[in-house]
Amino acid sequence: MQITPFQSIVTQYKTVFFDAFGVLKNHKGLIPGVSDTFKFLKENGIDYFIITNDASRGPKELANSYTQQGLTEITQSKIISSGMLAREYLKLKVKQGTVAYLGTAQSAHYIETLGTKTISIADLDLTKADEVNALVFLDDEGFDWYHDINKAVNLLRTKNIPAIVCNTDKSYPVSKHEVAIAIGGIAEMVEKIVGKKFIRFGKPDAQMFIFAYEHSVGKGGVADKGQILMVGDTLDTDILGGNKFGLDTVLVLSGNTIPTQAQMKITASGIIPDYICDSIAID
Amino acid sequence: MQITPFQSIVTQYKTVFFDAFGVLKNHKGLIPGVSDTFKFLKENGIDYFIITNDASRGPKELANSYTQQGLTEITQSKIISSGMLAREYLKLKVKQGTVAYLGTAQSAHYIETLGTKTISIADLDLTKADEVNALVFLDDEGFDWYHDINKAVNLLRTKNIPAIVCNTDKSYPVSKHEVAIAIGGIAEMVEKIVGKKFIRFGKPDAQMFIFAYEHSVGKGGVADKGQILMVGDTLDTDILGGNKFGLDTVLVLSGNTIPTQAQMKITASGIIPDYICDSIAID
Amino acid sequence: MQITPFQSIVTQYKTVFFDAFGVLKNHKGLIPGVSDTFKFLKENGIDYFIITNDASRGPKELANSYTQQGLTEITQSKIISSGMLAREYLKLKVKQGTVAYLGTAQSAHYIETLGTKTISIADLDLTKADEVNALVFLDDEGFDWYHDINKAVNLLRTKNIPAIVCNTDKSYPVSKHEVAIAIGGIAEMVEKIVGKKFIRFGKPDAQMFIFAYEHSVGKGGVADKGQILMVGDTLDTDILGGNKFGLDTVLVLSGNTIPTQAQMKITASGIIPDYICDSIAID
Amino acid sequence: MQITPFQSIVTQYKTVFFDAFGVLKNHKGLIPGVSDTFKFLKENGIDYFIITNDASRGPKELANSYTQQGLTEITQSKIISSGMLAREYLKLKVKQGTVAYLGTAQSAHYIETLGTKTISIADLDLTKADEVNALVFLDDEGFDWYHDINKAVNLLRTKNIPAIVCNTDKSYPVSKHEVAIAIGGIAEMVEKIVGKKFIRFGKPDAQMFIFAYEHSVGKGGVADKGQILMVGDTLDTDILGGNKFGLDTVLVLSGNTIPTQAQMKITASGIIPDYICDSIAID
Repeated sequence: MQITPFQSIVTQYKTVFFDAFGVLKNHKGLIPGVSDTFKFLKENGIDYFIITNDASRGPKELANSYTQQGLTEITQSKIISSGMLAREYLKLKVKQGTVAYLGTAQSAHYIETLGTKTISIADLDLTKADEVNALVFLDDEGFDWYHDINKAVNLLRTKNIPAIVCNTDKSYPVSKHEVAIAIGGIAEMVEKIVGKKFIRFGKPDAQMFIFAYEHSVGKGGVADKGQILMVGDTLDTDILGGNKFGLDTVLVLSGNTIPTQAQMKITASGIIPDYICDSIAID
Repeated sequence: MQITPFQSIVTQYKTVFFDAFGVLKNHKGLIPGVSDTFKFLKENGIDYFIITNDASRGPKELANSYTQQGLTEITQSKIISSGMLAREYLKLKVKQGTVAYLGTAQSAHYIETLGTKTISIADLDLTKADEVNALVFLDDEGFDWYHDINKAVNLLRTKNIPAIVCNTDKSYPVSKHEVAIAIGGIAEMVEKIVGKKFIRFGKPDAQMFIFAYEHSVGKGGVADKGQILMVGDTLDTDILGGNKFGLDTVLVLSGNTIPTQAQMKITASGIIPDYICDSIAID
Repeated sequence: MQITPFQSIVTQYKTVFFDAFGVLKNHKGLIPGVSDTFKFLKENGIDYFIITNDASRGPKELANSYTQQGLTEITQSKIISSGMLAREYLKLKVKQGTVAYLGTAQSAHYIETLGTKTISIADLDLTKADEVNALVFLDDEGFDWYHDINKAVNLLRTKNIPAIVCNTDKSYPVSKHEVAIAIGGIAEMVEKIVGKKFIRFGKPDAQMFIFAYEHSVGKGGVADKGQILMVGDTLDTDILGGNKFGLDTVLVLSGNTIPTQAQMKITASGIIPDYICDSIAID
Repeated sequence: MQITPFQSIVTQYKTVFFDAFGVLKNHKGLIPGVSDTFKFLKENGIDYFIITNDASRGPKELANSYTQQGLTEITQSKIISSGMLAREYLKLKVKQGTVAYLGTAQSAHYIETLGTKTISIADLDLTKADEVNALVFLDDEGFDWYHDINKAVNLLRTKNIPAIVCNTDKSYPVSKHEVAIAIGGIAEMVEKIVGKKFIRFGKPDAQMFIFAYEHSVGKGGVADKGQILMVGDTLDTDILGGNKFGLDTVLVLSGNTIPTQAQMKITASGIIPDYICDSIAID
């Protein structure tokens, strides 16, 4: 397994797509060296976007979380989240009625600006759900799991409405040794119980990469996919999705995929990054 | 689709295995005619056992629930539940340490009589989990879903211990139109997240039928499988499991499988009962 | 279930994406009325594209098959097949070495024009496979199933190379009552056996719709997704994919989804078309 | 990971269940030391049975294959194969008509002695399949994969009959570096395509262990499960099944699970053997 310095790779590209968790930050804060990397990118005229399956907060709040840690280069317009795709879907396909959601008030940002009425699953009375036209899985907090996940199951059994999942992840790290179940894991359980097909947004799905690509090209970014690099810490979301979309891919070993297991995981999964770097830090 | 009267079928057999929910009772209580059927069985010297995936209560409490409704023929010794298999497994394979469980105090009956220490997941302190040697999924109540399901995930990530599931069902009916997520559904979500193989007990698994069969034969019941009839309302647990074990099978239309969909479900699944009856009522 | 005449729907859109099998043709040839529909589209200035998971032939051969049946409106440039996405992937990600494939010489069209060497799995000598850098599943014919599917398994076990699947379908109709296993079904079996993640192209994947969308917009087609209609006969490819991409969708009852089962399948799957039509014929 | 000598373990038990491939033999023949082990078992009055998912030959032919290699202790009565369970099922549940099968004439041994008519899928004319009452997947050889697997799909689509699979394995080793697709892998593909539930016999399913257990007890073997040891080289069949049935389990490193990956696989899967041995050889 050959480890390549990130600097020698990134200078061959005009645009970089970064995963967030495990690449830019972890449970302790920013990953060491990340601020210098973003200064380096700026100095070298390399554009960048953050592509994240995190729909728990809107792009503005996500950007603030970097700014607060001193990484001022990541502004709202640089962030592409799976919540933005869900928003796009609802705008095109659910034009009236009420949209129910599982998540915090903060996560509901994505759907509240659409004009349709929204209601938290926590506030929903199943016997008065006639107007509900879609159910959106946004975040694992903001509702009572026992009562409200059961309510989601019965809502979908009673009414034939689309169910939209804004995060394909099943869990996310909350400390060095602990994870929490993500809304993607809960949605999968509900999907199996009701036996219906949910609509999922997030990596590795192509739609996530296209949304970022079009966003980038729309802002004057390079259109040649051969000049775009995808950087991630997870083989089956970041690298699989990047490869399939035709981008060159870098696996970093600063998150989900630890150095001692990287080669084994690549061989076992058949998901092959073009490069492997310790992290995105630049010497 | 030919409907046969239950009476004309059951008299051809010496022992009958009944599923409980949808066959003997539903959310409103006993299914009409069930009491007469059990009198008929007694008069005709036909033996019977109840085979249930319900591990929320012990056999004694399960039997009481029938007695209270006037069905005195179903005593404790007539009930075979998936919890009894989990108990057997723990007795043979987990001889020391502490067994943690998800469920009510009532469901813990199955594991508390074993001699090993037990602890509810609600009372478990993850930082002091050194002595925990197994995790058992018993019932969907008795713990806080948000905190305690996440605790179960992290316990299984930290410690390589067996996880045992006492109910293969993903949901169960609580009223005419509503269901609740069963512990089997929760266990499947946790299994996917931690990526490990859980040990499951319950129909359609053969072990459930063998346990009942040996129990029956041990009490003097008939050993010839050709003289045992399995009666259930669900194709992919009762009928699939009964068929695979070599028993003749009856699908009743008084529960999960409703008359208008029975033929379609049989054709779609390829799970073929030997007979179809409206219910086990006898004219 | 409300059936709407196709004519009253299609006139509300500027571009239509059609699935091929079950919508335009079936095992007997063109579906009645289809020629008139394409004349109607032309007269009314409505643009159209055919989006198909069929990678057994190139767009030119696919177009010829319509022309031979008298449907001259469907030219090569109107056809988007999943093979074109695989071609794009290989062009961007597999720049050297040899590409091995399962399929006929005809299906190899997609990969032969790339400049890299290609070899049919039937001609591959596993002991001399050092130069093989990718394996592509194109078509279910053109090789010996016993020897060559086993060869594919061993190639992927020995060499860590990407496996690309150009057809997500598991089977396809060959007569009124018979189907044949499609290359997508074979690829799924191989994927399970080798335990690796394959790269799949075809509906319902978003990439298929985006490819068609960009192709259409590139030729001057409408960019507003709200003015594009997707028409298909299969809920879990055509309608699910179209919905997720934000298009309005029509389910036609002239193929996979037969009139007596349509409502049941929509309710069971939760995949909801915006409209249902008997076929695309115009009165 | 603690490696224990097999001798010190086995002497604590009265009966041993052995998996065949990877434990007793591999592609080169008998595993070194195996003959001495069986002499040791005999001298010490420890009973033994071979439990195998191999249904390609009957118990007599399987026993012969050991005798020819000098291991005369393994006689026909010591072998329990998944084919024997399928035979039992057919005897109890398919009493008339014709049983069609995929496999060699040799594998058909299991079903030919039942009295019902049998026909190889290779000889089946789909238009004259009215009498076929079951389809059995026995072995991956003896038929033309292209024509006959497609025939199996169409038979199951046309007629609602049970499909029985006599081998749960998806592949099997044919040389040091090559595997072949097993009939279990083919059956799974067919099952997915026709969308029906097949009946599977083989480890890790409990029925396989119970069949062996009853066979052993019937011949005077020990009934206390605590005195029976299961020995296998594969975690998710031999060890998972043995554990679930309540037996103590030994993982040997002479087959599927190689020494450098054993600990990793145990941790990743959560399938925990009671002991680990290099092989069953005795010093």
